[in-house]
Amino acid sequence: MSANSFGNFFTITTFGESHGEAIGVVIDGMPSNICLDLENIQHHLNRRRPGQNHLTTPRSEADTITVLSGLFEGKTTGAPLAIIVKNQNVQSRDYDNIANCYRPSHSDYSWEARYGVRDHRGGGRSSGRETVARVIGGAVAMQLLSKLGISIYAYTTQVGNIKASSFDKSVIEQNPLRACDLAASKKMEELVSDLAIKGDSVGGIIECKIDNIAAGFGDPVFEKIDANLAKAIFSIGAVKGFEIGLGFEAATKYGSAYNDMRRATGYLSNNGGGIEGGVTNGNQIIFRAAIKPTPSISPPQKTIDKNGNECEISIKGRHDPCICPRVVPVIESMSGLVILNAIMSYSSTSIFKK
Amino acid sequence: MSANSFGNFFTITTFGESHGEAIGVVIDGMPSNICLDLENIQHHLNRRRPGQNHLTTPRSEADTITVLSGLFEGKTTGAPLAIIVKNQNVQSRDYDNIANCYRPSHSDYSWEARYGVRDHRGGGRSSGRETVARVIGGAVAMQLLSKLGISIYAYTTQVGNIKASSFDKSVIEQNPLRACDLAASKKMEELVSDLAIKGDSVGGIIECKIDNIAAGFGDPVFEKIDANLAKAIFSIGAVKGFEIGLGFEAATKYGSAYNDMRRATGYLSNNGGGIEGGVTNGNQIIFRAAIKPTPSISPPQKTIDKNGNECEISIKGRHDPCICPRVVPVIESMSGLVILNAIMSYSSTSIFKK
Amino acid sequence: MSANSFGNFFTITTFGESHGEAIGVVIDGMPSNICLDLENIQHHLNRRRPGQNHLTTPRSEADTITVLSGLFEGKTTGAPLAIIVKNQNVQSRDYDNIANCYRPSHSDYSWEARYGVRDHRGGGRSSGRETVARVIGGAVAMQLLSKLGISIYAYTTQVGNIKASSFDKSVIEQNPLRACDLAASKKMEELVSDLAIKGDSVGGIIECKIDNIAAGFGDPVFEKIDANLAKAIFSIGAVKGFEIGLGFEAATKYGSAYNDMRRATGYLSNNGGGIEGGVTNGNQIIFRAAIKPTPSISPPQKTIDKNGNECEISIKGRHDPCICPRVVPVIESMSGLVILNAIMSYSSTSIFKK
Amino acid sequence: MSANSFGNFFTITTFGESHGEAIGVVIDGMPSNICLDLENIQHHLNRRRPGQNHLTTPRSEADTITVLSGLFEGKTTGAPLAIIVKNQNVQSRDYDNIANCYRPSHSDYSWEARYGVRDHRGGGRSSGRETVARVIGGAVAMQLLSKLGISIYAYTTQVGNIKASSFDKSVIEQNPLRACDLAASKKMEELVSDLAIKGDSVGGIIECKIDNIAAGFGDPVFEKIDANLAKAIFSIGAVKGFEIGLGFEAATKYGSAYNDMRRATGYLSNNGGGIEGGVTNGNQIIFRAAIKPTPSISPPQKTIDKNGNECEISIKGRHDPCICPRVVPVIESMSGLVILNAIMSYSSTSIFKK
Repeated sequence: MSANSFGNFFTITTFGESHGEAIGVVIDGMPSNICLDLENIQHHLNRRRPGQNHLTTPRSEADTITVLSGLFEGKTTGAPLAIIVKNQNVQSRDYDNIANCYRPSHSDYSWEARYGVRDHRGGGRSSGRETVARVIGGAVAMQLLSKLGISIYAYTTQVGNIKASSFDKSVIEQNPLRACDLAASKKMEELVSDLAIKGDSVGGIIECKIDNIAAGFGDPVFEKIDANLAKAIFSIGAVKGFEIGLGFEAATKYGSAYNDMRRATGYLSNNGGGIEGGVTNGNQIIFRAAIKPTPSISPPQKTIDKNGNECEISIKGRHDPCICPRVVPVIESMSGLVILNAIMSYSSTSIFKK
Repeated sequence: MSANSFGNFFTITTFGESHGEAIGVVIDGMPSNICLDLENIQHHLNRRRPGQNHLTTPRSEADTITVLSGLFEGKTTGAPLAIIVKNQNVQSRDYDNIANCYRPSHSDYSWEARYGVRDHRGGGRSSGRETVARVIGGAVAMQLLSKLGISIYAYTTQVGNIKASSFDKSVIEQNPLRACDLAASKKMEELVSDLAIKGDSVGGIIECKIDNIAAGFGDPVFEKIDANLAKAIFSIGAVKGFEIGLGFEAATKYGSAYNDMRRATGYLSNNGGGIEGGVTNGNQIIFRAAIKPTPSISPPQKTIDKNGNECEISIKGRHDPCICPRVVPVIESMSGLVILNAIMSYSSTSIFKK
Repeated sequence: MSANSFGNFFTITTFGESHGEAIGVVIDGMPSNICLDLENIQHHLNRRRPGQNHLTTPRSEADTITVLSGLFEGKTTGAPLAIIVKNQNVQSRDYDNIANCYRPSHSDYSWEARYGVRDHRGGGRSSGRETVARVIGGAVAMQLLSKLGISIYAYTTQVGNIKASSFDKSVIEQNPLRACDLAASKKMEELVSDLAIKGDSVGGIIECKIDNIAAGFGDPVFEKIDANLAKAIFSIGAVKGFEIGLGFEAATKYGSAYNDMRRATGYLSNNGGGIEGGVTNGNQIIFRAAIKPTPSISPPQKTIDKNGNECEISIKGRHDPCICPRVVPVIESMSGLVILNAIMSYSSTSIFKK
Repeated sequence: MSANSFGNFFTITTFGESHGEAIGVVIDGMPSNICLDLENIQHHLNRRRPGQNHLTTPRSEADTITVLSGLFEGKTTGAPLAIIVKNQNVQSRDYDNIANCYRPSHSDYSWEARYGVRDHRGGGRSSGRETVARVIGGAVAMQLLSKLGISIYAYTTQVGNIKASSFDKSVIEQNPLRACDLAASKKMEELVSDLAIKGDSVGGIIECKIDNIAAGFGDPVFEKIDANLAKAIFSIGAVKGFEIGLGFEAATKYGSAYNDMRRATGYLSNNGGGIEGGVTNGNQIIFRAAIKPTPSISPPQKTIDKNGNECEISIKGRHDPCICPRVVPVIESMSGLVILNAIMSYSSTSIFKK
């Protein structure tokens, strides 16, 4: 199977580089006869795009979608939806100085080892710009999920050592970090602004919740819904950790304190994060991802060049000092794809149910 | 693709329930003409099996492998290797009392929602016994990797709040918890013994290292090697968290402190855990998994029965109070499968390399 | 994906060699809560097995199935069904004389080129005995299809130059060649008996019909139901041709004579064989497969040995002089798998249909 | 896996409708560092395009390729190649009269049963125009194969009842039917011209040869190279039959006459068509496909409308009276994809060969 495809039932295949002609996605397995809301897709892309506010990279692209196939008179036909976004801001001269030098904690060196060649213009295919295609695919998936009443939303809970201490869903889209706690958001904003001036960056944590998903979705053994969420989230470039429910804290617990007991009216806790044995149990799905600091920083860094000689590199231009707010819609999108695939897997045998 | 299959190139397909006839694995994509070391497979199975010592469940099974196909005169033929382990200790009467009642933090309820039916004998297919098949497949994969000089080893670094504070590879197989720190291991052993008496359980953390893997393995975008490790590890029942390199700690770092700089002689740090952009970078691969406490505990727990009525359940028999030492070989196995698949993906285009 | 797996939704993975321990199949994607009729599976295996009558090879094996997993109290659980048949008649000494010599029109040479090693005992994995696993999988698939009213049946229409000139479904299982025309069957039987005495063999044609399948199953573009039938049938060792509806005769037709016109009461012809654009159109599905003569014959044949030296080979023992009657259940089985997968693909999006 | 994808190693995913924005293909699994010959791709597209001469449909489109991704400085990067062709001649008014009426032996009815909706403009996704994407993918595949010395070429051997009686490779591209026999071609041309005037159409047979392929490619059991060729060729809309080597004639043969014996200098015959047991045997691969008459004809035909009422339809506009010459490059393309995938499968384990 294509390494640039995701999903066994609702499959997205993505293509495009940072400085190529276009970024695009082919969506296969699309149910037919669905009215597609293109503005909603554009809305999610806008949440992901650069230049939204003073905390994101100023590379400003409209990221406007063009539908190449799969729609007829506003409805899906069951044929593959192909949607592209043309690249506009593609001055590759900014990248000439890094053509021969491996940027630390970027994939410059590893991809060159993989392919023997490297498109050095903004990272080429390894650029975060690749997630444009994921957000389009995820937006379509979430439109389908919303028909089943399922909603997915992510938000920043930590930037550096600053942690959200409350959760208010209504504030998420009201602050530049997409944090769930307005007070914490102010402090995060200060920190990030300060780092931006220094040309430095910082990591963070994003949490994601999936509401109103019924029990019974997910496939043992290798297609557990949490295993697929882990893969989906870890396939996003900046992610270094993934945990569900109590996550790493579960390591410290006794079974008698951890187990999710229940009454007729519902579960008494949600330490498992909504999934048992890889299958949804009716509880809210809740997980977190650790995001590393953006590797593009201006302070000089020791590295080597293509010939193995030592050199120093200082990455010019302004980059996102904290990528978290722009990763939020990508995490929602990847989650949407996983959940939709699990539901379609379930649906595939439903013809044999009485 | 089969939900009970793993790997696109070296593919294992597993089957079997806790109390069925046998657990088995079909290994496809096996290179031909390889001398297979069956004793080595048995060795890894023995590391996984119950009844190894006083800290594991006393269900004592020899777990002896039988090769059904794929071997001729000691060598692989390229045909699928099918290997089974017959179940011996299958008194299902122990489970009659839980047939109608959903055990907390087990998959009883979620699987019944998924399938409308449940093999309640020891969890059926959702039992940890399923990992017998993974360990066989992983042992074969690791035999192939060892031909390329790659070695994989995991160990316990934390049980409850007791953390290893040193790393000594030579002690891992010398203590019942497979901890990497003998002093910490003693304390862990005390805690676990105490919990065993109480019928309670505890979680922990397992770390895994992969030595001597060259740069250039892994596939962007969705088949990143860390994404596949995340899925592989999260597909193991008890896992609730996965992180690579600095993992969740990366969220707290500035880029200037996080980035892995390098000299001509090598990397100056390994915060990335050996993978950049989903592709190995020549650094050691290092990751950790959070293991939840075993859900089978004897204190009474509130739950509901099949009719939705509230009830209390007390799980009889002795179970693993801390599953970590038995998960260690499973984590190694799943890692071996991921690494081998990435290498075979790389190899698939090598015919076009000069 | 595993090269020994078939089907994206209802997936069979097969293993086993002619003279190994067992032949087996793992069936994944099985709907749960289905009462499985094991006797029906055995019935189809008996139709495939050697030694049924004087026209088939006398290697006589009971081919009794053993279920290893996936059944609980007679019902499927949704877990993989693993079913094996132990090999009994495995005297490999018969094959010593062909260990170093490539039998003409067998896969001895091509497989050795592929794998660098060869299990020469009865063809190993390349033996027609591999189809035992297909028939088990197909029998299960056909049980599911029968719940939807769909039935599949194949029969011999030609042996050498002797062609059936009538169709009577009721006689198929009443004659040793599984021909659809009793008069023709007599002549076929004479020819085959005569060839058996001479140690020669003959080819034939098998036709297959699928009744009562509704319009709308199949997936464009690459997963057309006729494309998958073609692959499924061509994956059976002896097949050299496949055609649907008019097949090769369509090449000679004008559109005005070929097109399947229709009235409100139904189609006026079925030249397309029940499929248009890869999707069923409500007409009966009808296709044919060309079967080559069994390559194991006793007259001396020119070939080469492992060192490239010329030699002559005379294949001892009695083999099927015409394999058609034993291929009939294999063709039904593979067809059943294709149809079931197409239906499950259709079902996978049905949750979004009003 | 996506139903609009083909190939497990070198994977093409296609999209686009007859009258949509564009037809396109995403090629994944592309080896890196390969100089891509874009003119060669365009050359193959030109062989497929309409309006080449007086025997093809006059819909005249330049079918010019645009590369959206995967190329950097003329070389492949290992990232997906996305290539599109914009649709230009998309007057959909011609199709208004068939919006409510099912054209006989088209997929109008079956696709509407499948999807509940239909893009009636020129067949939408079911149009032969979809093969533009296949030809692009196939041209890239054949460029890779040519590096290994393998060449693939197809040609028309029969139109209606007119059969080629000789084979001259050099004339194939010199006559409008791409026949391998210039004398027969003249007669075919007369027939087709005559039918064009009458608005009728005719079928034919295309043969394909693959030269210089070594023994040892292909995978048993279900991924036999002939099984994948059968699927690949049958996935082309107009194909109703596929046979390899002697094909259906094999049914009439005795083993003693059919078997391909060999001397040290090579095979004495090629009745098997170059493949035994699903694996290449070093002989030339040779197969044939039966092509049905184009279903779009102008004589009135009986059919039904969306409400099930009987009606007559006369398809206006001029269509290809014999599609064979335009299917030739599509058959080469699909064959190239199959062969390349088999070679990459072989290559995937080569790292373990001494």
